[in-house]
Amino acid sequence: MPELRKDYVTDTWVIISTIRSSRPGDFKDVSKKTPPEKCPFCYGNEHLTPPELLAYRKNGPPNSSGWWIRAVPNLYPALQIEGAVNRRVNQLFHRVNGVGAHEVIIETPEHDAHLSALSDFQVQEVITAYRHRYLDLIRDKRFKYILIFKNHGVRAGASLSHPHSQLIATPIVPGRIMEEVNAAQRYYESTGGTCIYCEIVETELEEEKRIVAENESFIALSPYAARFPFETWILPKAHEMAFEDITDAERAPLARMMKDVLGRLYQCLEDPPYNYYIHTAPCDRKETKYHWHLEITPRLTETAGFERGTGFYINPVMPEDAAAILRGKTGLLEKPH
Amino acid sequence: MPELRKDYVTDTWVIISTIRSSRPGDFKDVSKKTPPEKCPFCYGNEHLTPPELLAYRKNGPPNSSGWWIRAVPNLYPALQIEGAVNRRVNQLFHRVNGVGAHEVIIETPEHDAHLSALSDFQVQEVITAYRHRYLDLIRDKRFKYILIFKNHGVRAGASLSHPHSQLIATPIVPGRIMEEVNAAQRYYESTGGTCIYCEIVETELEEEKRIVAENESFIALSPYAARFPFETWILPKAHEMAFEDITDAERAPLARMMKDVLGRLYQCLEDPPYNYYIHTAPCDRKETKYHWHLEITPRLTETAGFERGTGFYINPVMPEDAAAILRGKTGLLEKPH
Repeated sequence: MPELRKDYVTDTWVIISTIRSSRPGDFKDVSKKTPPEKCPFCYGNEHLTPPELLAYRKNGPPNSSGWWIRAVPNLYPALQIEGAVNRRVNQLFHRVNGVGAHEVIIETPEHDAHLSALSDFQVQEVITAYRHRYLDLIRDKRFKYILIFKNHGVRAGASLSHPHSQLIATPIVPGRIMEEVNAAQRYYESTGGTCIYCEIVETELEEEKRIVAENESFIALSPYAARFPFETWILPKAHEMAFEDITDAERAPLARMMKDVLGRLYQCLEDPPYNYYIHTAPCDRKETKYHWHLEITPRLTETAGFERGTGFYINPVMPEDAAAILRGKTGLLEKPH
Repeated sequence: MPELRKDYVTDTWVIISTIRSSRPGDFKDVSKKTPPEKCPFCYGNEHLTPPELLAYRKNGPPNSSGWWIRAVPNLYPALQIEGAVNRRVNQLFHRVNGVGAHEVIIETPEHDAHLSALSDFQVQEVITAYRHRYLDLIRDKRFKYILIFKNHGVRAGASLSHPHSQLIATPIVPGRIMEEVNAAQRYYESTGGTCIYCEIVETELEEEKRIVAENESFIALSPYAARFPFETWILPKAHEMAFEDITDAERAPLARMMKDVLGRLYQCLEDPPYNYYIHTAPCDRKETKYHWHLEITPRLTETAGFERGTGFYINPVMPEDAAAILRGKTGLLEKPH
């Protein structure tokens, strides 16, 4: 069974999950592309995945073709669905058994599609499926956090190229989420009731230079301290604690904004590998000061010893320049001074 | 000038340094190998680097050949040496101007050498040079932390293959260091005077199964919550706050231990890309509860959206299995259950 272990000293957690590799030779490059006829996410190959958890299809039995969205358990889950959560502390050794969920959402039957090129309807359906699976998983009281994320491209960790997203539910709230939630809480208290993310939306709209796109419900921006070149965040303009609270009226503008931003990245950077993930309130929903958002981080540079050693990042592109390029004002970065 | 910026919400810092890239096209793969005749770290090409800061050579003028260790400023520094440190906070925007030092230590004149295959003497000289440059930089009161690190292999961020290490001095103490220092302090207080790292050394020697190697002054271990497959730490057995306090008597065993561990990784994993870095007390040396150590992290897997979204890591190899393989007990990992 997988295991969650905490670092001796810091609050860094690791999932140790040996299911994916068993020999040192398994670390060889596995970047070969799966052809559609062998792709478990293509029509006709539904039997290659575990039985589906959800599918949007007009007719036909479960696990048949004809769907436009399909969710299945991950065949190589990082965490295991069965079992109670046991936390054990023995001297320096803190561990939790690896209980959780790990699911895949197949975003389209089209093997070679790019999310930005799907129809508005199809991307709305992806969002609907995210929420659908999220609401099902949150009922399981063993889970403290559910991350919805996407890896696109081999360098971004995608082992299959057919467009798909993933959900991982964990039995503890991840450190990065707690950091954000706690900081938002402190900000709220110290300002007598302001949400720091609402403040980001308002201030960045005023400053304008880091804004990538805006519509009636969402903004996309290059964050002031972007860790990665062309990192872009999408935030709802309205104060919304949790992704699952997204209204029906917001689904269409979110779909359009995701398509827009991912399309700009595709155009400006020639289909870069990227990750995105949704940061939302922990499952217990106690922290009403939080404000969900989606972070997109392209993979254009390698982090190295300095990043690993310090937790600092080195970004070679000014966020203001990245925003200008993505807005389409210029195709070039400023020359270094 | 480079800039350090803090995330709006969390304590994550970024160095924005545009010196290395100026156009989106610069993010293409730059993994071609430099031949020795064009390598700035080879004999005869000393003029291709900025003037040297230090060199160990018997005879000859500065910046000539004949050296066996050489330290130079990085030609593409992430931080800039001139200027005062200014910290500015304006609403959500925290920044510090990018003052710091960025140096390269060339570990050998041999272009194709691997650190583990150098002589004991040569690796001792590398350590001596680390300390030498460290002690020079620490006198500069603008610097709050100095990271000594090494990137080996293109995937680990090395842009030149000739063996070299780097030092980066930063005007603020990095988050990861503060986390360790603060946690060590809390442990010290809550236990009535125990160093958590001394406790790690003692407990892991008792448990044995995560020990990779041991000599009179150092142990190497697979940490209990290893973030990366085959991650290995080297710790001094004696309680030593800071790397610069290393005694003459410890230099030989440290050199042997580094050669030993890097050699095992080389053998077992066929010369994997890796990073290592030294964690030591911040420059002000106020935190006597700290205990320096060296962390080696091979690059065998990609981190992806889950890691970026949560700060969790997923490691597909049990640390106990990694230690057994590196000790030489078995060449194979256990099959998953």
